[in-house]
Amino acid sequence: MKKQQITNLKGFRDFLPKEKRARNFVVEKIVEIFETYGFQPIETPTLEAGELLKGKYGEEADKLLYSFKDRGDRDVALRYDQTVPTARIVTQYKNELPKYFRRYQIQNVYRAEKPQKGRFREFTQCDIDIFGSTSFLTDAEILACAYGSYKNVGFKNVEILINDREVLFSNLEKYATEKVSVMSIIQSIDKLDKMSEEAIVKELVAKGLKEPTAKEALKNIQNAPQTEILEKTIKAAKKLGIDESSLIFNPTLARGLDYYNSIIWEVVIPEYKVGSVGGGGRYDNLLNELIGEDIPATGMAFGFDRIVEAAIEQNLIPQKNMSTTVLVAIVDEAGFDKSMEVAKNIRKKGIKTEVYMNEDDKLGKQFKYADQNNFKYVVLVGGEEAAKNVAKVKFMDSGKEKEVQLNQIGEYFSGLTDE
Amino acid sequence: MKKQQITNLKGFRDFLPKEKRARNFVVEKIVEIFETYGFQPIETPTLEAGELLKGKYGEEADKLLYSFKDRGDRDVALRYDQTVPTARIVTQYKNELPKYFRRYQIQNVYRAEKPQKGRFREFTQCDIDIFGSTSFLTDAEILACAYGSYKNVGFKNVEILINDREVLFSNLEKYATEKVSVMSIIQSIDKLDKMSEEAIVKELVAKGLKEPTAKEALKNIQNAPQTEILEKTIKAAKKLGIDESSLIFNPTLARGLDYYNSIIWEVVIPEYKVGSVGGGGRYDNLLNELIGEDIPATGMAFGFDRIVEAAIEQNLIPQKNMSTTVLVAIVDEAGFDKSMEVAKNIRKKGIKTEVYMNEDDKLGKQFKYADQNNFKYVVLVGGEEAAKNVAKVKFMDSGKEKEVQLNQIGEYFSGLTDE
Repeated sequence: MKKQQITNLKGFRDFLPKEKRARNFVVEKIVEIFETYGFQPIETPTLEAGELLKGKYGEEADKLLYSFKDRGDRDVALRYDQTVPTARIVTQYKNELPKYFRRYQIQNVYRAEKPQKGRFREFTQCDIDIFGSTSFLTDAEILACAYGSYKNVGFKNVEILINDREVLFSNLEKYATEKVSVMSIIQSIDKLDKMSEEAIVKELVAKGLKEPTAKEALKNIQNAPQTEILEKTIKAAKKLGIDESSLIFNPTLARGLDYYNSIIWEVVIPEYKVGSVGGGGRYDNLLNELIGEDIPATGMAFGFDRIVEAAIEQNLIPQKNMSTTVLVAIVDEAGFDKSMEVAKNIRKKGIKTEVYMNEDDKLGKQFKYADQNNFKYVVLVGGEEAAKNVAKVKFMDSGKEKEVQLNQIGEYFSGLTDE
Repeated sequence: MKKQQITNLKGFRDFLPKEKRARNFVVEKIVEIFETYGFQPIETPTLEAGELLKGKYGEEADKLLYSFKDRGDRDVALRYDQTVPTARIVTQYKNELPKYFRRYQIQNVYRAEKPQKGRFREFTQCDIDIFGSTSFLTDAEILACAYGSYKNVGFKNVEILINDREVLFSNLEKYATEKVSVMSIIQSIDKLDKMSEEAIVKELVAKGLKEPTAKEALKNIQNAPQTEILEKTIKAAKKLGIDESSLIFNPTLARGLDYYNSIIWEVVIPEYKVGSVGGGGRYDNLLNELIGEDIPATGMAFGFDRIVEAAIEQNLIPQKNMSTTVLVAIVDEAGFDKSMEVAKNIRKKGIKTEVYMNEDDKLGKQFKYADQNNFKYVVLVGGEEAAKNVAKVKFMDSGKEKEVQLNQIGEYFSGLTDE
């Protein structure tokens, strides 16, 4: 057949082993913590009925929905987020799920966005949520779980900025005018992490506030006290495991505010400058709006791609995850059977081992392959070694060699501290 | 909003925690072995260019492809299998991948099949393959890895039936007539696992063979000797770890034969009666046919849904994977802070722990929740316990209680052998 030059579609990514392993590592580390917090995994289909997803994300988002007619002329659409399918799940299986339901979900979503740096048409969402309770305890559990998850990936510094939308409304309402709504004031003030105070004041004045009012509003919100619910949540979350200095009240944090109704938060890794690596809040009314079921909820989304990027930046992905450790060379016919057994016995210890894949290649070629693919050790059992019941272990970094008894080979490798 | 009654689409499945956990368990166990064999993970996009997938799977399959025009009027299609996207990968990234490339891939595929028992429109494929080598060593590695994977899930009995398509052709060619091709004879004989010998002979006679010829053909193939490549592969695979009696030469195994060109095999769990749980073979010419790149390959597909089903049937999914272990009750205000710390300290030991999610509920309600959701232990720290620096641990199965020192609570739970 003629050679095809077809590549992946624009906006879609292939993950080769190195990147896929980094992603797997992050999933493994955060899921480990999700599980200790009692979160339970679910999975929903990639395709849903079009009528479930359409009109749920606002007009702009509807345009980004991958929807089409299937062969049965049904209107279907690719998963756009995990919230709407989960809203369906907690309604459809209400009688099978716990009254208070903690779930985690890590699946891909699809959005027909214009491809650009850091924006993809298929990307992984990673959410934890608790359904069925309005208690501040659930917010505290989510916060502590999130903190533990980031820490478990290996990040030294993790900061969670927290606010209550009530703080914003109760402190800013009085500055609203007929022309400038409280929402509009909040939207300007939310930009404090990117803009200077002067610029914010300027923007508010441009919107129609008087300068002294704008300045007072800003000062007022910056010095706003915590609400009772914030105090309780923060205290409980710290007792549950968040370091004292890592959970920070930020009265100007707004997070779009579209569907949150109480506590909101954002997670920041200070050394990672691209932006926040997660965020969430309480959304007691959303499930009713989405699906007509009155179920309170709180939860958060982990910015999966950013977490992976930050973890790579900070060298948190263990190198032993990245390549195969041992190459068992094929030396000669006389050593062949014992070479196979050596591979078996090293693998029994959980050590990544390949048997070289072409018995006709000379040893030089086999070492070249080991070198190019970052193997740490090459194990050789030729007829000579087989007769002595030993294997020759070659250290690829130093070039040193060591003879190991065949019946000790597994133990030998599991004892090498750098594996 | 009015309540919506939208459910999942026909042919698509929701996985609630119990089932999702069983699936995760199987993935974890087989991936553990894939990794020790040096297989590396990759991931490809859900959507591919329509022209990559169309015409690749035969006319019938093309009808099952989920394809549509995206908003940019591009012809796109949902992943139909993992082989074609991987063929694209090994071509597109040829210079970045090892010369001999072992990869595993576990992703969902989409087929617009008529929904029926055991057949779904979205299902998980799980493949291991080695690209770039024609050596029998690669077949042996795949076989041993597969065997180890099934064993690692916990199956006691795993049988791999193996054949070489050469066995079929060289032993049956002589019985072919103008009317009855060797392929047609093979197709009949391949049914030996479902039909009696008499029925096979009858079918061959109906096709046009004389009865003595049909009988002789059947007898001949049943007694056919192994080819040299079979002997070498089987010997190496056993040395690599397959039990002597578990790798069985079956000269009538044909596996459709569509694109395999040498060794083929099928995996059976004898106690599981639905059918084989995996299979594969060498397909040195397929990548050339698919994508015009001359790369030899061998590999296999694990029947993921069946493996999960068989594992559940055989009670292989550990119960501790299935529910959260400890519920920390909310007793009173005075014990609240210490209750949070208790949750923190039990979780530190990796034990699944929930803090009860409504501080207003009476203890009776909290115990009911623990009971309904299969918690093993409820931990209580009220003011009374807090003052004594103890926690009360209630065993849900026996109703017994035990007092544990607060500073020992983590160790206490990690010492409970049944966790």
